[in-house]
Amino acid sequence: MRHHRLFTPGPVEVETENLQALATPQLHHRSKEFSQLFDSIQEKLKRLLYTENPVFIFSSSATGAMEAAVTNGVKKKCLNLVNGAFSKRWHQITAYNGVPCDALSIEWNKAIKPEMVREKLDTGEYDAVTLVFNETSTGTMNPLKEIAEVVKEYDDVFLFVDAVSAMAGVKIEVDKLGIDMCLAGLQKCFALPSGLAVSPVSERLLERAKEVPPRSYYFNLNIMHKYYQRSQTPVTPAIPHLFALDRQLDYILNEEGLENRFARHERMAAIVQKWARTHFDTYPERGYESKTLTCIENTRGISVKELNERLMNEYGMRISNGYGELKEKTFRIAHMGDAQVQDVKGLLAVIDDILGLE
Amino acid sequence: MRHHRLFTPGPVEVETENLQALATPQLHHRSKEFSQLFDSIQEKLKRLLYTENPVFIFSSSATGAMEAAVTNGVKKKCLNLVNGAFSKRWHQITAYNGVPCDALSIEWNKAIKPEMVREKLDTGEYDAVTLVFNETSTGTMNPLKEIAEVVKEYDDVFLFVDAVSAMAGVKIEVDKLGIDMCLAGLQKCFALPSGLAVSPVSERLLERAKEVPPRSYYFNLNIMHKYYQRSQTPVTPAIPHLFALDRQLDYILNEEGLENRFARHERMAAIVQKWARTHFDTYPERGYESKTLTCIENTRGISVKELNERLMNEYGMRISNGYGELKEKTFRIAHMGDAQVQDVKGLLAVIDDILGLE
Repeated sequence: MRHHRLFTPGPVEVETENLQALATPQLHHRSKEFSQLFDSIQEKLKRLLYTENPVFIFSSSATGAMEAAVTNGVKKKCLNLVNGAFSKRWHQITAYNGVPCDALSIEWNKAIKPEMVREKLDTGEYDAVTLVFNETSTGTMNPLKEIAEVVKEYDDVFLFVDAVSAMAGVKIEVDKLGIDMCLAGLQKCFALPSGLAVSPVSERLLERAKEVPPRSYYFNLNIMHKYYQRSQTPVTPAIPHLFALDRQLDYILNEEGLENRFARHERMAAIVQKWARTHFDTYPERGYESKTLTCIENTRGISVKELNERLMNEYGMRISNGYGELKEKTFRIAHMGDAQVQDVKGLLAVIDDILGLE
Repeated sequence: MRHHRLFTPGPVEVETENLQALATPQLHHRSKEFSQLFDSIQEKLKRLLYTENPVFIFSSSATGAMEAAVTNGVKKKCLNLVNGAFSKRWHQITAYNGVPCDALSIEWNKAIKPEMVREKLDTGEYDAVTLVFNETSTGTMNPLKEIAEVVKEYDDVFLFVDAVSAMAGVKIEVDKLGIDMCLAGLQKCFALPSGLAVSPVSERLLERAKEVPPRSYYFNLNIMHKYYQRSQTPVTPAIPHLFALDRQLDYILNEEGLENRFARHERMAAIVQKWARTHFDTYPERGYESKTLTCIENTRGISVKELNERLMNEYGMRISNGYGELKEKTFRIAHMGDAQVQDVKGLLAVIDDILGLE
């Protein structure tokens, strides 16, 4: 059977060369060869993220890295900015770990604005902010740069960014923006399988983590950092993913090139957005549409389930229904990772055929 | 370059067919195909572990599953049985998570005895016990059956077992022994790459987890269980590993057969132990030697580092030095996973050559 081509906002299609890299024979995680692989990945991730900070590799999904941020990085209280399912989850994670927190919740089709953040931080209550840059549930891209500039005005407030469905598809200058953690899984714009999460970690976060009462061993940043000093990880990571990540970073940095990759994501986003507005509408607030996935408001009242089933059965392609309560009210097309303009155009053309659009 | 054959107690050699299974194109973690894969793995893991309980799949290393056990399963106080590096780590994990706990620590070359456990449980202080069945750091196999029988005498005391370097190599009848969690990573006796951990979870543990104040979101057993009801996982797991695990379980259950697999591990252990006692000595207390790795006491004062370097450079094979403070005082040979009798005999023969043994 031909496998379904994934236009879902993660997992996405993985190139054959990267699948093959997964199948490299194992090496020992306490060997010189492992440390070389680790260092090679470090150096490339730093270039991808415009950072001098060590890039931590979490043997978990990105949800685990979200837990790491709030369990290590909050002494007073955390402000969670909520405008979608994944930002809501970060608030839940914070609460589940017994970390003091408040949510600033707004409507899901609206973007977080810098002035909302300033108003809350002016209370002096908070020493950390969590922001989901690109809300995979709604297709909203929050104004990271503007929000980061506001957070920077407050000396002791740390910024944690979920860049899950943006990293490696959209430029994020981590150090310039002063982001203390900027986390992502590999199964989105990296176009690799799920199984690891990555995030640069700032020096001041490592310092704060020493002052906070420990809330987890597995996600303790200082334990991880101790091992990184000798280019190892405290636990055995998913070694197949490291082989594939190293290979894919070479491709991203040296073959495609970062600027080309970001530009390709911009082009694909423009194509899908235009199509969405011609036949339906886009869900997020105007001007805050994601560059990596488009959330389409189902203004025609089509059956999204049926559309997806026909796409799968007749064309072997898969898109995503709306998330949670947005099911059938919206649907989502991912244009991220290694998907090309022609792939997206082909998908839209067959959707046109199925729905009888012109 | 020929890759080093791993006789290390994890990671171990992975068969080509399993490496290839990792390279299967991705499927979506919210698809029917994923649920079929999930169900298939469930059914096979239950057979492997002689259990009717759902087998949880942790998107983490086994260390994460250790954290899950103590954060979900302790209301009063946890008794951590410590006779090696990994049982010591479980005690640290418990403490780091703010879970009340005591360690019962004995010498590392001794096994935990059932009567030691009874004495502690008689105090009535504890409602959970952690035991590392097979201490990878010392090659000691604790008497699981006897200890489980003692724990069973106490109605509300839960038993958590780290079976990391034993599961799928040694028979563990989880339900009969009344084990509430029995956890392992895939990179040991499963002979797969690291990147996931598995553990059956008892019904009473899920009940207790509801009564315990939440200590983690990522490792919350009830959140995970909610998703398992529809054959999904809450976070995107390492899908390549699931493909390989499904394939390898078929091999273990239907091609090699469980009894044959356990018998092969027994045979390999006997060979290496005999060799060790002829030329050196074995480190653990007599009668408690591991069936999956042998920890050899360096009675000849050889340079283990040099031996391993010669093995790697001249033969492309790798064993392990002693763990932590046992470095150079001991060394470890793994005979687990898909390693065959002839592989182990070949290794010992070249060690004989290198060291000039007869």
